[in-house]
Amino acid sequence: MSDLLRLFEPERVAVVGATPREGSVGRGVMENLSGFDGEVVGVNPNYDEVLGRRCYDTVDDVPDRIDLAVVVVPPDAVVEVVDHLGELGVENVVVVTAGFSEAGGEGAERERALVETAREYSLSLVGPNCLGVASTPSNLNATFGPSSPLEGSISFMSQSGAFVTAAVDWANDAGVGFRHVVSLGNKAVLDETDFVEAWGEDEGTNVIVGYLEGIDDGGEFIEKARRVTRETPVVVVKSGRTEAGARAVSSHTGTLAGSERAYEAAFRKAGVVRAENVEELFDYARALDSLPLPDEDGVAVVTNAGGPGVMATDALGESSLSLAEFEDATYDALDDALPDGASFYNPVDVLGDAPVNRFEDAVEAVNDDPNVGACIVIACPTATFEFDALAEALAEVQDPDVPLLAVLMGGEATRSARDILSENDIPTYFDPSRAVRSLDALAGYRRTKERDHGEVRDFNVDREKARGILEDAGDDGRLGVEAMPLLEAYGIPTPRGEVVDDPEDAERVARETEGDVVMKIVSPDILHKSDIGGVKVGVSDDGVRDAFEDLVSRARSYQPDAELLGVQVQETVDTDAGVETIVGANRDPQFGPLVMFGLGGVFVEVFEDTSFGVAPVTDTEAREMVDGIDASPILRGARGREPVDVEAVVETVERISALVTDFPEILELDINPLVASPDGVSAIDLRLTVDTEEL
Amino acid sequence: MSDLLRLFEPERVAVVGATPREGSVGRGVMENLSGFDGEVVGVNPNYDEVLGRRCYDTVDDVPDRIDLAVVVVPPDAVVEVVDHLGELGVENVVVVTAGFSEAGGEGAERERALVETAREYSLSLVGPNCLGVASTPSNLNATFGPSSPLEGSISFMSQSGAFVTAAVDWANDAGVGFRHVVSLGNKAVLDETDFVEAWGEDEGTNVIVGYLEGIDDGGEFIEKARRVTRETPVVVVKSGRTEAGARAVSSHTGTLAGSERAYEAAFRKAGVVRAENVEELFDYARALDSLPLPDEDGVAVVTNAGGPGVMATDALGESSLSLAEFEDATYDALDDALPDGASFYNPVDVLGDAPVNRFEDAVEAVNDDPNVGACIVIACPTATFEFDALAEALAEVQDPDVPLLAVLMGGEATRSARDILSENDIPTYFDPSRAVRSLDALAGYRRTKERDHGEVRDFNVDREKARGILEDAGDDGRLGVEAMPLLEAYGIPTPRGEVVDDPEDAERVARETEGDVVMKIVSPDILHKSDIGGVKVGVSDDGVRDAFEDLVSRARSYQPDAELLGVQVQETVDTDAGVETIVGANRDPQFGPLVMFGLGGVFVEVFEDTSFGVAPVTDTEAREMVDGIDASPILRGARGREPVDVEAVVETVERISALVTDFPEILELDINPLVASPDGVSAIDLRLTVDTEEL
Repeated sequence: MSDLLRLFEPERVAVVGATPREGSVGRGVMENLSGFDGEVVGVNPNYDEVLGRRCYDTVDDVPDRIDLAVVVVPPDAVVEVVDHLGELGVENVVVVTAGFSEAGGEGAERERALVETAREYSLSLVGPNCLGVASTPSNLNATFGPSSPLEGSISFMSQSGAFVTAAVDWANDAGVGFRHVVSLGNKAVLDETDFVEAWGEDEGTNVIVGYLEGIDDGGEFIEKARRVTRETPVVVVKSGRTEAGARAVSSHTGTLAGSERAYEAAFRKAGVVRAENVEELFDYARALDSLPLPDEDGVAVVTNAGGPGVMATDALGESSLSLAEFEDATYDALDDALPDGASFYNPVDVLGDAPVNRFEDAVEAVNDDPNVGACIVIACPTATFEFDALAEALAEVQDPDVPLLAVLMGGEATRSARDILSENDIPTYFDPSRAVRSLDALAGYRRTKERDHGEVRDFNVDREKARGILEDAGDDGRLGVEAMPLLEAYGIPTPRGEVVDDPEDAERVARETEGDVVMKIVSPDILHKSDIGGVKVGVSDDGVRDAFEDLVSRARSYQPDAELLGVQVQETVDTDAGVETIVGANRDPQFGPLVMFGLGGVFVEVFEDTSFGVAPVTDTEAREMVDGIDASPILRGARGREPVDVEAVVETVERISALVTDFPEILELDINPLVASPDGVSAIDLRLTVDTEEL
Repeated sequence: MSDLLRLFEPERVAVVGATPREGSVGRGVMENLSGFDGEVVGVNPNYDEVLGRRCYDTVDDVPDRIDLAVVVVPPDAVVEVVDHLGELGVENVVVVTAGFSEAGGEGAERERALVETAREYSLSLVGPNCLGVASTPSNLNATFGPSSPLEGSISFMSQSGAFVTAAVDWANDAGVGFRHVVSLGNKAVLDETDFVEAWGEDEGTNVIVGYLEGIDDGGEFIEKARRVTRETPVVVVKSGRTEAGARAVSSHTGTLAGSERAYEAAFRKAGVVRAENVEELFDYARALDSLPLPDEDGVAVVTNAGGPGVMATDALGESSLSLAEFEDATYDALDDALPDGASFYNPVDVLGDAPVNRFEDAVEAVNDDPNVGACIVIACPTATFEFDALAEALAEVQDPDVPLLAVLMGGEATRSARDILSENDIPTYFDPSRAVRSLDALAGYRRTKERDHGEVRDFNVDREKARGILEDAGDDGRLGVEAMPLLEAYGIPTPRGEVVDDPEDAERVARETEGDVVMKIVSPDILHKSDIGGVKVGVSDDGVRDAFEDLVSRARSYQPDAELLGVQVQETVDTDAGVETIVGANRDPQFGPLVMFGLGGVFVEVFEDTSFGVAPVTDTEAREMVDGIDASPILRGARGREPVDVEAVVETVERISALVTDFPEILELDINPLVASPDGVSAIDLRLTVDTEEL
């Protein structure tokens, strides 16, 4: 068992700062602890007793071992208290008190001291600036919130304390229970990753749910969450767009790679189910908590009304699921069970006059069909329909392997039926589309579980050569085509070519190259070479000398102070025969190196049709990135063209991932274009920025 | 007043087929009519009295005028009863009985007779095969549903009777009221357009809500709804994808123009607010019913918790709205009203310990700001917070011109506050994103109201010439480049060129044309000319003769039985200097001619980046179509290119709209490509299909 789980299983809780004062946090926590199965003591020199519990002057005076200390003393007393607790051997501490880093200045200083103290004693410390923690198996409510959660198997963490109170109040009303609840507060010591990991090992936790505004250590989160989501679903609302990496503005495609894309890529990599809003968060959590996973994407809909059946069908059409096609035996069974006029085809319409047993028969028939992965029952009120009886019947006929969801389209008439279904782990909805979306989340999680993450391939690369090239970057850290050998060092094909200093060398390179050459001015100060006539294509051997002089003189007249590194003389690549792609990378403040893929030109600039992966990407992930853009059919040979060598594109993504993983000092990198043709890929142009201080 | 509104205001209702038999529809209707403010009589020869109401043998025996007859007799008796009613001068009839066109065969025959009878007497006839009608001002519930609606100002129609029962039961629970309710049934006589029109003239109807599976007369619906939505919002869930026009499969872009796109375009044209699902339908309807329209897109968020404020901000980022930027005076007012630590910036955080008056002060301050179009208040439970007091305070401070929405993030703790707010026309939500989406629908409707639809421009065209060209189509109705003069007749520029029969003519055309020419084989049987080498570009005057022979011989050897219409000799258009667009049209079974616009090549084929308009499109609509594709920045000069002549593109869309409006016998038409350059447009290739029987 994870040590952290002990936080939720104390036998004795001490509230440091307990007080009977009305409206105080200290009183709120003591009140909420009144139902705790274990022992509760207060610590406050001003009282001998608080709300009927013994109260001690200091933590040292508490005679028995404290398993969990809840600290609600004023901010400037917190560090000393925590230090005492550490000395005493207390392992689990929740600091509710606010006035730390969220308050800035002095508070930030205080938080640093708190972290230091916690580290010294290896404390499991929640907060500061939080609502507290709760754990329903022992009726532990060590929060100052207004209500206590019901017992359940969803463990819930939130970076917003207010959202804990909101969610618990709502969940109590909706009959949704929790196992452990944590208000993360400032996450000075324990953060989302710690709880994902711990709850992943907790037998009693079926689903991990989180409201997060940011993730502290992106890499560690991915690593841990990825392991947990193999067995336990993690559903997260990630709210608030963080400052898109401030440094990631200069390079072109970099500007598209905001931090939001990083979170998206990270959650995908980690197998985390992402919810867009609160409604989805709990819809998905409830479905994942109570239902088996569907083993087929085909869904049977059984309804007593055509219209709502169509609504469900529409929603299925917008999901990753579909209406199941039944086997003959199922049609036969439905034919036996249903009267004339009923529809045996999916959606199965049992008709408006259907009594409960007709629903029962239909559900049993479709559940037996191997093409049916899940069943949605829709019932509309009629003058005679008995929702309660339907609820009881569905509880009877539900198949432990086929998720069953109930859409009860009504209000008051459906209330007690909802309770019956909920007690029998059948989630209920009013809107058919919400049932479908929840089921879609279930199917998505099944795919996550089944997914082969692939492996990070180990390429034969020349790190020393690469380091030497990166070290050549000037003070501003910018490198251009002169760094093309970097790509060669990482096994990415580039056209034959060189950056040369004088016309003679240019002629030599041109002679050694078959056909005409492309010549480009090379300068870190000239970003848009074409705009100043800094690029010449189709230069023959005879024209190389003149072209060299011309390029240099144009550059000098355009920007006299520009540093000229020379002229690139490059083999002509037939771009018409291929597809221009872009492979890039930038560095995200939370998740480190992020690899980007897209098609060149308007595809990235106008459609923003790009995909992202957190490095190091596996072979599977690189393939998913290449397949994941909307324009990917173009690579696969849309419009009658020959498909390009997609494997080579995928491998380039992996090799760039390897490069930026090996050299985190690469802040941004763009190969634009990487021309992909049926015969392979060729990196035509390169731009990158290096953090020279880190090198 | 619309005659149709009398349907909802009867003084005397006769139920033809009334019966006391338990579980019968006739009894159900009689029971529901028990609360009716007017008089109710039954008609059934077997009874003198049904549920305490006088019952007559036949309709002729009813001594007083019948304002509304509800017919629940067996199907084969319906037509005779309705005929009697017509003879008697009854104007309003609801046929509840099923067994008509929905049952096929005999039922369809019966429905035809019913329609004929209704027409003979100009009856306002609802149904058949429906749940009935209800109208709350007079407590009229002439349905056999299980519950009666509450009074309100939303008028509601549904093509699904079951959805009426579902919605009413749900609405009663949620405190949502209705004015008129109609179950449309088979829509044999009265359909959605009739009720949209009538309710548009009804003073008591604030919002028209519909659940529709199809629209019968698309053109009429658009015309009527467009007028109504100027004053009264219409919110619709259109469910069920109709059979994409079966004929619209042959031409290339036509395959993208499914009927769903037609509905989308039609609702936009008509100003109808489209909801995707039931939840949105009622969220939008409630907001439109109770709130003023926001006159700015800036939204103020006032919250007692940071996290939920961020959730609202995220949702605003995904909407057409934004966080309002406050004026200095607002910051000053907030500074006065709020304590240290509160955030004056939007979202305004009044802090977790905020008493109700702090919310009040903040709402008043932001409502006074001219940049604030709407205000969302978010409250999370705290140990001491009083939701009821907040509700009462908000009811006090709400500004009649600034919509106020309340997000109460809790369950039981918020229940009575929800009722208070609801009574004061302040809609409440649990999830901040639902509040934002509802507000977004309000803002969308404001834009609809304000929108200048533009005008259908009248172009100087040569209809006779066009008719002549269309009549040249063969039996299969297909025409190709030989029909280019059709475009000329409608003022759409085409490259200089002709379709010729012999090499001499080809040489003549080439000589008359500046520069090299493009030559293409012309045959209705050869669809993909390039594939068989049927296209030659850059043909000089000298090469024309050989090219002609070569094209013809290739065509003959490729497809000996192909009908050859000749060879097109065309001026070379520099497509590189422009952008390839596609302007097309097809004919939708509900909405008639539909015009399509997109960029050529992968944009349409891979991204399906197209826009649609129902013809005749106005100048404004044509411009919206051109601006409405994702790729439109390419036309406007993305990537440093010169912008194309967008006006000429827009005008081409309008001219094609005029062409297909004038000639509805054009089933499909594609100009692909229409090359748009800075100097104008040029239609390079054309394909169309004509319904030769209609010509």
